[in-house]
Amino acid sequence: MEKRIIVRPGDRAEFRNLTDYCVGTGRLDLALHKEYQDQLRAVQEECHFRFIRGHGLFSDQMGIYQEFTPPAFIGGESRQWYCFTYLDRVMDAYLENGLRPFLELGFMPEKLAGSEQTLFYWKAHTVPPKEMEKWTALVQATLRHLMERYGREEVEGWPCEIWNEPNLPGFWENADKPGYLALYRATATAVKEVLPRMRVGGPAICGGAGSQDWIRDFLAFCRTEGLPVDFVTRHAYMGQTPEHKGRYLYHRMNDTQVLIDEMQESRDIIDSFPEYRGIPLYITEFNTSYNPFCPIHDTNLNAAVCASLLARLGDVADGYSYWTFGDVFEEQGIPTRPFHGGFGMMANGLIPKPTLWTFAFFANLRGECVYRDEGAVIVRRQDGGYEAVLWNREEEAEREITLPFSGDAAAILETVDEETCNPLRCWHRMGEPAHLTAEQTRILRAAGQPLLTSLPAEKTEAEVRVKITLKKNAVARLRVLPAPKQEDPGYDYGYYCQE
Amino acid sequence: MEKRIIVRPGDRAEFRNLTDYCVGTGRLDLALHKEYQDQLRAVQEECHFRFIRGHGLFSDQMGIYQEFTPPAFIGGESRQWYCFTYLDRVMDAYLENGLRPFLELGFMPEKLAGSEQTLFYWKAHTVPPKEMEKWTALVQATLRHLMERYGREEVEGWPCEIWNEPNLPGFWENADKPGYLALYRATATAVKEVLPRMRVGGPAICGGAGSQDWIRDFLAFCRTEGLPVDFVTRHAYMGQTPEHKGRYLYHRMNDTQVLIDEMQESRDIIDSFPEYRGIPLYITEFNTSYNPFCPIHDTNLNAAVCASLLARLGDVADGYSYWTFGDVFEEQGIPTRPFHGGFGMMANGLIPKPTLWTFAFFANLRGECVYRDEGAVIVRRQDGGYEAVLWNREEEAEREITLPFSGDAAAILETVDEETCNPLRCWHRMGEPAHLTAEQTRILRAAGQPLLTSLPAEKTEAEVRVKITLKKNAVARLRVLPAPKQEDPGYDYGYYCQE
Amino acid sequence: MEKRIIVRPGDRAEFRNLTDYCVGTGRLDLALHKEYQDQLRAVQEECHFRFIRGHGLFSDQMGIYQEFTPPAFIGGESRQWYCFTYLDRVMDAYLENGLRPFLELGFMPEKLAGSEQTLFYWKAHTVPPKEMEKWTALVQATLRHLMERYGREEVEGWPCEIWNEPNLPGFWENADKPGYLALYRATATAVKEVLPRMRVGGPAICGGAGSQDWIRDFLAFCRTEGLPVDFVTRHAYMGQTPEHKGRYLYHRMNDTQVLIDEMQESRDIIDSFPEYRGIPLYITEFNTSYNPFCPIHDTNLNAAVCASLLARLGDVADGYSYWTFGDVFEEQGIPTRPFHGGFGMMANGLIPKPTLWTFAFFANLRGECVYRDEGAVIVRRQDGGYEAVLWNREEEAEREITLPFSGDAAAILETVDEETCNPLRCWHRMGEPAHLTAEQTRILRAAGQPLLTSLPAEKTEAEVRVKITLKKNAVARLRVLPAPKQEDPGYDYGYYCQE
Amino acid sequence: MEKRIIVRPGDRAEFRNLTDYCVGTGRLDLALHKEYQDQLRAVQEECHFRFIRGHGLFSDQMGIYQEFTPPAFIGGESRQWYCFTYLDRVMDAYLENGLRPFLELGFMPEKLAGSEQTLFYWKAHTVPPKEMEKWTALVQATLRHLMERYGREEVEGWPCEIWNEPNLPGFWENADKPGYLALYRATATAVKEVLPRMRVGGPAICGGAGSQDWIRDFLAFCRTEGLPVDFVTRHAYMGQTPEHKGRYLYHRMNDTQVLIDEMQESRDIIDSFPEYRGIPLYITEFNTSYNPFCPIHDTNLNAAVCASLLARLGDVADGYSYWTFGDVFEEQGIPTRPFHGGFGMMANGLIPKPTLWTFAFFANLRGECVYRDEGAVIVRRQDGGYEAVLWNREEEAEREITLPFSGDAAAILETVDEETCNPLRCWHRMGEPAHLTAEQTRILRAAGQPLLTSLPAEKTEAEVRVKITLKKNAVARLRVLPAPKQEDPGYDYGYYCQE
Repeated sequence: MEKRIIVRPGDRAEFRNLTDYCVGTGRLDLALHKEYQDQLRAVQEECHFRFIRGHGLFSDQMGIYQEFTPPAFIGGESRQWYCFTYLDRVMDAYLENGLRPFLELGFMPEKLAGSEQTLFYWKAHTVPPKEMEKWTALVQATLRHLMERYGREEVEGWPCEIWNEPNLPGFWENADKPGYLALYRATATAVKEVLPRMRVGGPAICGGAGSQDWIRDFLAFCRTEGLPVDFVTRHAYMGQTPEHKGRYLYHRMNDTQVLIDEMQESRDIIDSFPEYRGIPLYITEFNTSYNPFCPIHDTNLNAAVCASLLARLGDVADGYSYWTFGDVFEEQGIPTRPFHGGFGMMANGLIPKPTLWTFAFFANLRGECVYRDEGAVIVRRQDGGYEAVLWNREEEAEREITLPFSGDAAAILETVDEETCNPLRCWHRMGEPAHLTAEQTRILRAAGQPLLTSLPAEKTEAEVRVKITLKKNAVARLRVLPAPKQEDPGYDYGYYCQE
Repeated sequence: MEKRIIVRPGDRAEFRNLTDYCVGTGRLDLALHKEYQDQLRAVQEECHFRFIRGHGLFSDQMGIYQEFTPPAFIGGESRQWYCFTYLDRVMDAYLENGLRPFLELGFMPEKLAGSEQTLFYWKAHTVPPKEMEKWTALVQATLRHLMERYGREEVEGWPCEIWNEPNLPGFWENADKPGYLALYRATATAVKEVLPRMRVGGPAICGGAGSQDWIRDFLAFCRTEGLPVDFVTRHAYMGQTPEHKGRYLYHRMNDTQVLIDEMQESRDIIDSFPEYRGIPLYITEFNTSYNPFCPIHDTNLNAAVCASLLARLGDVADGYSYWTFGDVFEEQGIPTRPFHGGFGMMANGLIPKPTLWTFAFFANLRGECVYRDEGAVIVRRQDGGYEAVLWNREEEAEREITLPFSGDAAAILETVDEETCNPLRCWHRMGEPAHLTAEQTRILRAAGQPLLTSLPAEKTEAEVRVKITLKKNAVARLRVLPAPKQEDPGYDYGYYCQE
Repeated sequence: MEKRIIVRPGDRAEFRNLTDYCVGTGRLDLALHKEYQDQLRAVQEECHFRFIRGHGLFSDQMGIYQEFTPPAFIGGESRQWYCFTYLDRVMDAYLENGLRPFLELGFMPEKLAGSEQTLFYWKAHTVPPKEMEKWTALVQATLRHLMERYGREEVEGWPCEIWNEPNLPGFWENADKPGYLALYRATATAVKEVLPRMRVGGPAICGGAGSQDWIRDFLAFCRTEGLPVDFVTRHAYMGQTPEHKGRYLYHRMNDTQVLIDEMQESRDIIDSFPEYRGIPLYITEFNTSYNPFCPIHDTNLNAAVCASLLARLGDVADGYSYWTFGDVFEEQGIPTRPFHGGFGMMANGLIPKPTLWTFAFFANLRGECVYRDEGAVIVRRQDGGYEAVLWNREEEAEREITLPFSGDAAAILETVDEETCNPLRCWHRMGEPAHLTAEQTRILRAAGQPLLTSLPAEKTEAEVRVKITLKKNAVARLRVLPAPKQEDPGYDYGYYCQE
Repeated sequence: MEKRIIVRPGDRAEFRNLTDYCVGTGRLDLALHKEYQDQLRAVQEECHFRFIRGHGLFSDQMGIYQEFTPPAFIGGESRQWYCFTYLDRVMDAYLENGLRPFLELGFMPEKLAGSEQTLFYWKAHTVPPKEMEKWTALVQATLRHLMERYGREEVEGWPCEIWNEPNLPGFWENADKPGYLALYRATATAVKEVLPRMRVGGPAICGGAGSQDWIRDFLAFCRTEGLPVDFVTRHAYMGQTPEHKGRYLYHRMNDTQVLIDEMQESRDIIDSFPEYRGIPLYITEFNTSYNPFCPIHDTNLNAAVCASLLARLGDVADGYSYWTFGDVFEEQGIPTRPFHGGFGMMANGLIPKPTLWTFAFFANLRGECVYRDEGAVIVRRQDGGYEAVLWNREEEAEREITLPFSGDAAAILETVDEETCNPLRCWHRMGEPAHLTAEQTRILRAAGQPLLTSLPAEKTEAEVRVKITLKKNAVARLRVLPAPKQEDPGYDYGYYCQE
């Protein structure tokens, strides 16, 4: 199947590219790990995200909330304090990597937790506080500390989201809506007391039955109570009813359109409140599957689905954050094998997954959009060249792209498909080793690189035409760059080579 | 065209792999350059050569021989000394990169030069000394300094070759054979006085009419004079009569067999002297073209020709040294453009050329050879797997390789051909830019990487069979590795992917 | 007070320097942290320890022992497996830093723990297994995995100690001696089944009442049962009865002699068993205070006390391991401030403490010992020079050192005392900041460097004499190096400078 | 001798700190060297200079101007071109290190040189062009290339100075003034044709008899001819009549005042031209001695003299550039030994000289000046603390500094004097080794570090008082920083330590 894409002079298309706005991460204290920071640096070199959002700011692994009661043989009074040692180390690491936190205020420190419920292998306390004042004091002390360390102006620029997915009983006991609203009231008020210009929002819900009602009820509550809402947040996943095998989970994915419609509905709800019309909607988590042991995340299919999302999410949201950048992650347990269906764009061992390149290609797609359809976005660059991301979820197909162009052109293609960039298949063929030798790691890193080639570009007076073939589940970056010939007398490329 | 390679249990083949023995470099003081050291580090990561040989140890750019005469208004006597500042810095850099020098004693410091003749853009003084005693004093002082700095045992292990290509008038005034023999006598004797166990040799000739006579006359002279000859050295190039265009030079290449025969003839001459039978023959320079502005060096063709050389040079020589590892080189002038036909395995800007991978593949080909023909060498690895280098100078063709194997196997292929790893073509299509932008540099570095893919491996009880396609001028590394299946209950690769 | 040290030609002194044998670390999984690895690299650059020993190999933070029961709505059987992801990452990091593990087998995974008792902020399960078979299966599976990954020969060289301080009820429920002996029997036997040449030992006791009996009973038991004992391990601390203030602990230290006597007694007990006479005694932990919130660890006093220990520990033990190299440590909680009395040689923020230099000086003290007393160890170096470590726990005093020496000499002194290398006082004067700014970190790192100066060396025909002043709690390294004068005609140091 | 410095609330002093404006370098192509770049990086970490100025942009070592005549046997026409390979590499290295070039247009390529005269070991052609048009074409082509590569706006910001020291016959044949003015006319006009906003200036003279006349005549000429003069440049050295010994040169230094007066006279001359009143005067070179083999440069004396210069040069000039940052330098030959009186702030082998710290201390002295005298400059920092540089060229003396201050204060002192930071003396005592072993290099690097200590700060309600002792030729940085006490209950610094 061949498809012709023709861009005429003056063509323009809508495309809002917020790919680099934000990215997700597992539990914040995992940022203390060297492997985490190595993966983060590698991802940032390609994608240069601006914000990062993760769970567990107030969980015990970050160790902020501290109490100490001397043993009886010593005696003396109990003491309470805040320990920001790990917080500083994590925030320093983010800033060194060009990232600022999109703060998610949660979960509850064990000693403040109002009940026993925990979630995850790492036992997040997903319950309201025993005493709201201790919680808000913790929030305020943390913000004050950050402000002292990083400066008021800097910290004011960090968005502040209250809790995570309170519409799930696992994340918020009984999915207690009034309880969440009370938490929001107390917390948002506390935040604004310390940093009036810090932006706060919620309700950070995931999709599913009743989720849109949460947004509506949340905004209605805030309107009634006169609470600040600087933005609305929600999540977006595509997985249908799952099938479980061992610790792994499998499911088919909804169409992109289903996800886009769901987001649009949230957008419409927000805009139905005159007080909140036009405030940002941030998708603070999105991915194909919502499960960290779903093998789809490691595939070329995932890369292609993400391309279709990144082409469209800017139509319905003001920011979106892929969940997550890397595979240093522990929610369902420590990964036993390098490929296990983790959310990350990189597998453990610094192995790029195909999806990394989808994000890298989109994050670098800068300029004026001249074309967009279900399988391609093309922009005109500042230097007069063109840059495109193309993808294909169907069977192998050709694309012929015609662009208005004067002067000579070079066509540079990077291809990520099941042949050229498929570390998962390589690992599978190597026997799915749980523990990589140094040689296997080198092989898989190389297997995770796109193939870069130059293409012949057919040139007429005012156009250039390039043909490429996209295999199933391919994602490609095509650059058509000005290539004025720089002669050097006597140099004859054709003596040994063909054009 | 398909070719079947079948390896049976117990098959063995002759193959003497000395790829990592030595590599060449331009003028030694260029090792002071950062770009040079960056290229060297990159090459060493892939090829881990053990020795490095280059010109100009005693040329003025290294600044060892120094004289100072105070200006008349000050008065006082002239003074002579040796300055080892740059020598130390260069040798330190080599040792840090895992390399030892294969010393080439030459050329003449200007102030010791017996006549005006110079060679190259950088004006090498390619003439005998005014006074032989000052020359041998310089040689001895330098060896003593090296011994003090690096230890006697270390320096004794560095081979010592006297001069370079004295059979060319450019390199040795009038190609004066008796003059060279006198230089050898004085120098070899001087070396052994300081370091009796250091190995010395010559005559470092290039090929051409009368070159074999040089070897014969050299050995006859040494025998007569009772001089030490620990090894014989010569060079090997393949270029036929050249065609000049501007500063560039083009020529067709001889067959590998011509070169091998020429080397065998030298070998036979050596062995015809009972006193010298079996002493090593080192090819202290080899390449396709002998010119640093011959565009062949940047091509995939060059990579394929080198493969055929590396498969056979060990049959006739005890060491060989590709001229040169990198493109920081000035003999015919400073390169104006990144691709200009320089000798290097890397282009300036840290861009790998296809030939780098030929050397990398052969340098890592370790184990017992089980198969060798005109397009393939296969070894059995210590881990029970197989590793092969394959190449093809004809039209696109298939290879079917059958190997004795028990257990599951993974086939990992790295391909360097005109499609997958061709930075020269990419640069040509970009308009042959003289000065690379940062984006162009990144593109070319990526264009210079092999494509690594996994292949399906057809398995029977006692064999594994792999099929690959080799395009024209392809060089490939194929690894067939043990791949025992490591199960994880519930993990189902096939749910989202095809085998 | 002045003291004269005179070394005569031919003088020899006993000194067994095992400083670089081993060093301690907190919970092994903390090695996943970047700050931990940065501290480790910095310490290794100075001290190049060969082994590292820490707690928690089998604790849940390392995540080796795993069980998974599918939720009821999914159903299916429980599964048990081992996850070596973090173990590999930790061991890889050690090996990259030139270290091998001194394995300590402990503590109990929660799911294998025979009772509820835990120790430390991080909840180590310090109890016997519910089922011994599951424990020994875990041990054996781990050893087998290490052997596969790192090679049998490599892993056989790692000593294996069973549990930690079972004579304390906190570390082993009820300090149950028969229970420990049963654990030792099962575990040592299990180890030898997998790796017959791996060396095993115990009982890893700390000092205190009855501790020597533990060693005696342990050996008697092993003799009776015919169990392997390749070495005996115990700990050595110097703290007297502590005083508690808040979370901090203060106490005065015993004399070095007390500690040495205690070790000698253990040595004598071992040697009283004919079967075990002469087997190694390893002090697998030593330090001044045994508490990680005892401010002594950050002081120059600590550095001076450690010098007196390092001068003598080789007299009574075959290896010793300072507890610990760094301050990434959580036993009594996460450190809230950079200086808090942690065990480490480096404070968090990569700030060297004075004690680091004691270890660095001793670790580099190589050669033939020519002098040792209560404040100095002097060795003759291979190059004919001398190297000394000197220390002083009394008031400021002079040392005059006379050494046999021919030729010119240079005296190079590095001084670590309360004036020249006292980051703790600097931090105290800065107001004891909990969170360091970048400027404060730079100041403290510089404050933690020794002062290196050259000294005049008084030279006679056959001797050299150097005078130094040691302040209270000073530790110094003095090198007296051959310094033959290298003249350069016209160079006149004295024109602008005094000698 | 004690001196009291008392700063009262509201005190202000004049002090124009341009320390970080510019630094000098030897021949530009030496920037290709790794050792050069390593030294540059190290200097920039401490001093973060903004511009760098060096000789030889158009000399043959940079290889910009190229001609090629095919050998007779080939035939064909001569060709001329520009080769920017090394220029790009050098400029890229500067920009990566945060530096921009202060362009000095000179010297003459050999093939354009109007006569045979050369200067320096490296044979700079210090003569007018054979044909002025070829020279201006070279200048314009180079500027156009830089503009294409780095952008017009960037390159416009690089000042452009025409030639170097034309008032010396060595640097400009016969010190031919009319010849220089003609060169200036042609060159300045050529520059402005390409980059009208680029600033051009001259006459780049050194001091000595008639030097002020050069400035006067230069400006008069430019006024008459209507030529652009955006700034005036000259050099400033302090050496009196030299004494020669071998290759070394020794002389006493003028007082700082002599140098300041000389600069003021130039300033007055400029301002006497109404057309040029107030245009910047840049001292494009300054140092104590003007000779690269004058041992003063390596001393603490040099560091102290530089302090007195940096305290005052801003009074008379709008920019000044220490000649030079490092010792990779070849004008009088390649340095044979690490210390040889080179201009650099760092010795070869990455060894800091005392002078580096003078520049580092001044470059970081930011804030409002509250005090300046002949031995001290004190500024009030943004954070409310104070930062001072103090120096002493007399015998050892005390300084008592009183500063207005509320709250607690910490005093941090860095001392560079003949005891604490004197690598030259250390090297001298080691026998003045020409070739450093790895151990000697480590020793000298450590010997070249300032001693950082904290001091007791005497505090009253509104003042803080600090006492320091300055040895002869000392340079010190003192920081008095706010140090609010951060309590941690139970932490007792005094238990083990004295205040």
